[in-house]
Amino acid sequence: MGFHKIINDPVYGFITIDHSLINDIISHPYYQRLRRIHQMAMAHLVYPGAVHTRLHHSLGAYHLMRCALQELIEKGIDITPEEQLGAKIAILLHDIGHGPFSHALEHVMAEGMNHEDISLALMKELNIQFNNQLQMAIDIFQNKYHKKFLHQLVSGQLDVDRMDYLTRDSFFTGVSEGVIGYDRILKMLTVHNGELMIEEKGIYSIEKFIVARRLMYWQVYLHKTVVSAEQMLQRIVKRARFLGADCDEPLFSFIHNSERSLEKFCNMDDTDVLMAIKKWRFHKDKPLSLLCEGLINRKLLKVRYFAEPVNAAFVAERKSIIKSQLGLSDEEVSWLVFTGEATSRTYDFEEEQINILFKDGTVKDISAVDNALINENLSGKIKKYYICLLN
Amino acid sequence: MGFHKIINDPVYGFITIDHSLINDIISHPYYQRLRRIHQMAMAHLVYPGAVHTRLHHSLGAYHLMRCALQELIEKGIDITPEEQLGAKIAILLHDIGHGPFSHALEHVMAEGMNHEDISLALMKELNIQFNNQLQMAIDIFQNKYHKKFLHQLVSGQLDVDRMDYLTRDSFFTGVSEGVIGYDRILKMLTVHNGELMIEEKGIYSIEKFIVARRLMYWQVYLHKTVVSAEQMLQRIVKRARFLGADCDEPLFSFIHNSERSLEKFCNMDDTDVLMAIKKWRFHKDKPLSLLCEGLINRKLLKVRYFAEPVNAAFVAERKSIIKSQLGLSDEEVSWLVFTGEATSRTYDFEEEQINILFKDGTVKDISAVDNALINENLSGKIKKYYICLLN
Amino acid sequence: MGFHKIINDPVYGFITIDHSLINDIISHPYYQRLRRIHQMAMAHLVYPGAVHTRLHHSLGAYHLMRCALQELIEKGIDITPEEQLGAKIAILLHDIGHGPFSHALEHVMAEGMNHEDISLALMKELNIQFNNQLQMAIDIFQNKYHKKFLHQLVSGQLDVDRMDYLTRDSFFTGVSEGVIGYDRILKMLTVHNGELMIEEKGIYSIEKFIVARRLMYWQVYLHKTVVSAEQMLQRIVKRARFLGADCDEPLFSFIHNSERSLEKFCNMDDTDVLMAIKKWRFHKDKPLSLLCEGLINRKLLKVRYFAEPVNAAFVAERKSIIKSQLGLSDEEVSWLVFTGEATSRTYDFEEEQINILFKDGTVKDISAVDNALINENLSGKIKKYYICLLN
Amino acid sequence: MGFHKIINDPVYGFITIDHSLINDIISHPYYQRLRRIHQMAMAHLVYPGAVHTRLHHSLGAYHLMRCALQELIEKGIDITPEEQLGAKIAILLHDIGHGPFSHALEHVMAEGMNHEDISLALMKELNIQFNNQLQMAIDIFQNKYHKKFLHQLVSGQLDVDRMDYLTRDSFFTGVSEGVIGYDRILKMLTVHNGELMIEEKGIYSIEKFIVARRLMYWQVYLHKTVVSAEQMLQRIVKRARFLGADCDEPLFSFIHNSERSLEKFCNMDDTDVLMAIKKWRFHKDKPLSLLCEGLINRKLLKVRYFAEPVNAAFVAERKSIIKSQLGLSDEEVSWLVFTGEATSRTYDFEEEQINILFKDGTVKDISAVDNALINENLSGKIKKYYICLLN
Repeated sequence: MGFHKIINDPVYGFITIDHSLINDIISHPYYQRLRRIHQMAMAHLVYPGAVHTRLHHSLGAYHLMRCALQELIEKGIDITPEEQLGAKIAILLHDIGHGPFSHALEHVMAEGMNHEDISLALMKELNIQFNNQLQMAIDIFQNKYHKKFLHQLVSGQLDVDRMDYLTRDSFFTGVSEGVIGYDRILKMLTVHNGELMIEEKGIYSIEKFIVARRLMYWQVYLHKTVVSAEQMLQRIVKRARFLGADCDEPLFSFIHNSERSLEKFCNMDDTDVLMAIKKWRFHKDKPLSLLCEGLINRKLLKVRYFAEPVNAAFVAERKSIIKSQLGLSDEEVSWLVFTGEATSRTYDFEEEQINILFKDGTVKDISAVDNALINENLSGKIKKYYICLLN
Repeated sequence: MGFHKIINDPVYGFITIDHSLINDIISHPYYQRLRRIHQMAMAHLVYPGAVHTRLHHSLGAYHLMRCALQELIEKGIDITPEEQLGAKIAILLHDIGHGPFSHALEHVMAEGMNHEDISLALMKELNIQFNNQLQMAIDIFQNKYHKKFLHQLVSGQLDVDRMDYLTRDSFFTGVSEGVIGYDRILKMLTVHNGELMIEEKGIYSIEKFIVARRLMYWQVYLHKTVVSAEQMLQRIVKRARFLGADCDEPLFSFIHNSERSLEKFCNMDDTDVLMAIKKWRFHKDKPLSLLCEGLINRKLLKVRYFAEPVNAAFVAERKSIIKSQLGLSDEEVSWLVFTGEATSRTYDFEEEQINILFKDGTVKDISAVDNALINENLSGKIKKYYICLLN
Repeated sequence: MGFHKIINDPVYGFITIDHSLINDIISHPYYQRLRRIHQMAMAHLVYPGAVHTRLHHSLGAYHLMRCALQELIEKGIDITPEEQLGAKIAILLHDIGHGPFSHALEHVMAEGMNHEDISLALMKELNIQFNNQLQMAIDIFQNKYHKKFLHQLVSGQLDVDRMDYLTRDSFFTGVSEGVIGYDRILKMLTVHNGELMIEEKGIYSIEKFIVARRLMYWQVYLHKTVVSAEQMLQRIVKRARFLGADCDEPLFSFIHNSERSLEKFCNMDDTDVLMAIKKWRFHKDKPLSLLCEGLINRKLLKVRYFAEPVNAAFVAERKSIIKSQLGLSDEEVSWLVFTGEATSRTYDFEEEQINILFKDGTVKDISAVDNALINENLSGKIKKYYICLLN
Repeated sequence: MGFHKIINDPVYGFITIDHSLINDIISHPYYQRLRRIHQMAMAHLVYPGAVHTRLHHSLGAYHLMRCALQELIEKGIDITPEEQLGAKIAILLHDIGHGPFSHALEHVMAEGMNHEDISLALMKELNIQFNNQLQMAIDIFQNKYHKKFLHQLVSGQLDVDRMDYLTRDSFFTGVSEGVIGYDRILKMLTVHNGELMIEEKGIYSIEKFIVARRLMYWQVYLHKTVVSAEQMLQRIVKRARFLGADCDEPLFSFIHNSERSLEKFCNMDDTDVLMAIKKWRFHKDKPLSLLCEGLINRKLLKVRYFAEPVNAAFVAERKSIIKSQLGLSDEEVSWLVFTGEATSRTYDFEEEQINILFKDGTVKDISAVDNALINENLSGKIKKYYICLLN
């Protein structure tokens, strides 16, 4: 009888922590910080239930990994206890490197670094603190471990990360159409030639999974009001950087690129950014104070989507009107009226592949099976153009 | 304060009966008969929860009609109380003409009649019994009423019948991937130029609806074990007819084409057929007794699906083996080894259309909008070929 | 890698069949018969979703047993693979002895026998057919096996039978208030001194479980319309027996007490009874035909509940009115106007006990813990008196 | 066709905003502030999903009010459009006066004021800003309006506030046993002699509601880890006040009792408190820094519950040990080792009453009906004693 602890989860019922090392990692301040980072940044301004945290998502993905491993073992796939522990730690920590508001500020807050790099750095630091017990997890995370399917469960077209975030995000937003059949997909997982695959019977569940993702992108993640709020958030940080606007440490170091460190990073979360925004509402710079006031009180920039790039004359006209209304300079108005692009892919034919294993041993990409819903027609990105502007 | 009665429904919570005429129709023996007809015929042999009834589905569709009308009225569409009552009665009775095991025996039991014809005949009979109060419902049902969208709600690509059966069947089977966002679709309904349409914001919900239907077809309705059981059921009736096998009235009249009447039809349900099958297990005709024994004890014919028509030599070989094993004639073995086709359409481009109403007033078919998931590639039927054979 | 098969269940998601013997038992005609027996007899006349079967309930209870055993093993309780298989088979077959309409006809159809006796007889018969592989299951079922907690999981105050039927019945009726936290209760199970107990942290879940059961009794199982329909069903069988009314075998033998056999029993299900009732609608005996007509068309006897025994003068008066209305004899009218009692217990202090295991090793009955909701005040039976009468 | 906007809610599906004044109130900065106040303070440290906000709860309670009014109107109760709007606004704003971390800091942050007083003050301020359109809402909120049942829906033993928080809190924690049948309770509401009552058929739902609340208290709201975290939170504020510890405005004014104003209050939320705690981790005062470090990193004080007041010698001993371990004074150690009481009532017989309206017109308190589960035995408070101490 080993370590055994349960956590209530509205999505899966109960999550079982089955190893003391996993419990120790969860208890570490690096991991607890994820409690203070929203999983979906500003989406709660449209979907008020979407206030769940990175910590909750990481726990959920860990739970699905535990289920996936159990399923594969029951099917006779050889996975040692050490490999199981490694895979579970790898997924538990896959998002440990996310900073405030996760993706929404990912390339803005710590320029030139993505969250996977920071996750890896933090995993290495934890590996030292935990006497090398995380080495297997790091190898799996970096795809250096010879059983490739373990990495594919952590990061791939069918990884448990994606399965959890789609399930969890649709649960907390209440967008029931984003629900995927994660339990059925898990039961259809198999390993063939060392790679993760889906049994033939699971084809329709995979189609549903891909279509649910497409729906979540356009109905939630790229909802125009969410795009507006997250653009405002990014521009607030950039404008504050541009102005040298004051704020407290450790945020100051990250905004103003001074003496950043992993330790400071680990002391920073959504709170720091929100607090700064609350103060900058009273900053003398008009674009900054307008953006901050707007984000706090949900007076958001208006967004319109177009199939084509936004007409330049239209943008110029709007800028001109707002400039004169508020007495702004050309430079200033460009923070309050601007254009951009939003893109998503239904299925990426170049990089990713979901392989279906047929009963006769054949392997086919999901887009190549007979009567495929997901076909070459969908290969291109969907790109939409938008304008954001002060109302 | 009018009539008000509530019925518990695990799918929608509560169904409100809001008019005494509707309550009287539900209480009528014709309607109560639907309690004894399985909604999904033999699907419960694969999905043990799928034992819900035609009565339950009809009540559910009535509930969705009530919600849809309320939604349209809130949007300012003019619908009189009489029209509301008519539309609600039309949907309540749309399946009243189903016989034992619904679709599975539809063209076998009463040859040359489909259930819509019988539904209409029964609605007319009820109209007499209820002093002409069903005339509006009959007009809507027959698409003779000038407000076409009312008929479209009863029968069309986006009717509440379809919304209920997908929702209900996925609920009772436990195939969570078949879940559609019926509540969101209802909120996106609108009427334009007298026709039912979907607002622009509902595009992704409709895509999801179409993909969910596709999934339900292949995972549930055309699941090979379900196809096997329903083929056995049809062949039992046909073989009994061929043999002049005995059974009780009113089933006897329908199987042996003697003195059929609407009244007899209304006394017949799944019970009569099941009881006959239980007896025919002991019939001296081998094909009949084997099929009956198999269906009752769930020893079903084995089914295999193929992308191409089944190889004739393979069929002949299987027949020959079983013939000699059981000492059957050529004629007899053809009841136990046979081939067939199963087809479904993801979206039917010829007959049906789901129109999207854009904010600027444009109307487009769902397959014609930018970046459509549902496109011409999917226009053909999906056809699969199967063989059924004694194991 | 052993036997592995999954079944969709709307209540629990997936049920895993993990042993070929269990699969063989499920495939046996004795077990398949349970598909044709309603779990809740006539409750679907009030709750139209409640048409689930004894087979579905048995599978569900098997699933909970599997979860409970896994939980106990993780807590270090010693349970051998043979004991696990035995306990799983015992629960799978605990209801195999139910006849048509289960409890509603239990003591009427086969007088003097309850379903547990027949279950045992059938388990012994199956044990012969399966070469003695069911001996452990039989020992556990009869409480002859030395590890008493295994029997308690099959039959006791906290057995998985009860957990499944409360969960399943509330699911299919849509009475959400009957929902119990079965997953939490399972996680709180433990074994102490060889007996099944609940950990201290589970007290409130148990209180909730007991209150949910109380609610289900009065809102569902003893709902006056359900009581009416089930009384009618019983009286139909009794009246047919009294009259020597004709029906087909094997029902004839059971109604008329002639040549009953286990084999005949196994060929009888709800269909046989329903078919007989459909025919007896046209029987020349007025009470019988009225009861049958009423049950088929849901024109039920009216029921009223009273806190005291029903006033005799009131009963006499109603009888007299109906007698003269329909031209019946005294004997005949007593089938259409009659009184009865319905009782339930919230918690039975004499026979049953739910033991709570405290952290310090103390064991207390749930009714004896501090601030207990379930206390001696609730020890008496709740008894209500009713009259059933033709409307 | 009036104002019509929908908001996704994972709990109820969709919430409809049906009046422009309600939309304007929701859009007001006072209301938007509730987005930054956790509904359940520190409960998310035990139940990671419990991060929902006061704004979400208020919207949910508004939704239930809308349903309740609709139900009563369908039953023929006279409620004018103005009264409906008033009741909906009253419930929407009932929690507007909550400060950071709601109840957890209620009497600590603004000493001597409870949140209802502040709610009223803010409603009056909004009434000015919205040209007196909130007067009816204020009258209902203060129970000055002659139709008493409207106030009872806002605040009473069966108010929609309670129905929403139980439903929502059990949803987000995943404690399924806390689920109440809110939809059935709503359908059982009625008005008799101007007071809110429950129809006879709703008795068991009410029992369930009261038991669910009892369970939520002890399993969630007074869970020992939650109690620990919320005690730490309170003591942090008190210690900071005692020390004159520095922090930013407007929090500074509230902690140090200087120049408090309604305007400052409306600029304060969880963020301000969290940010101060993050800084005070590095404060030179040991009790303060230890408490802050502990709360941020979830290294909580250990809590034990007792049925009797905690043994004084035991407390003294623990204090002494920790004093010498950390080199603290007597005064200092009392911030890290302390005792307290937690109380709840299952049903309060003195102040509150839930009236059942019987079919014959009789009215009885729920505790006075026959066979009541909720009886005098439960009238006393349940009181438990605890010790909190550094681990």
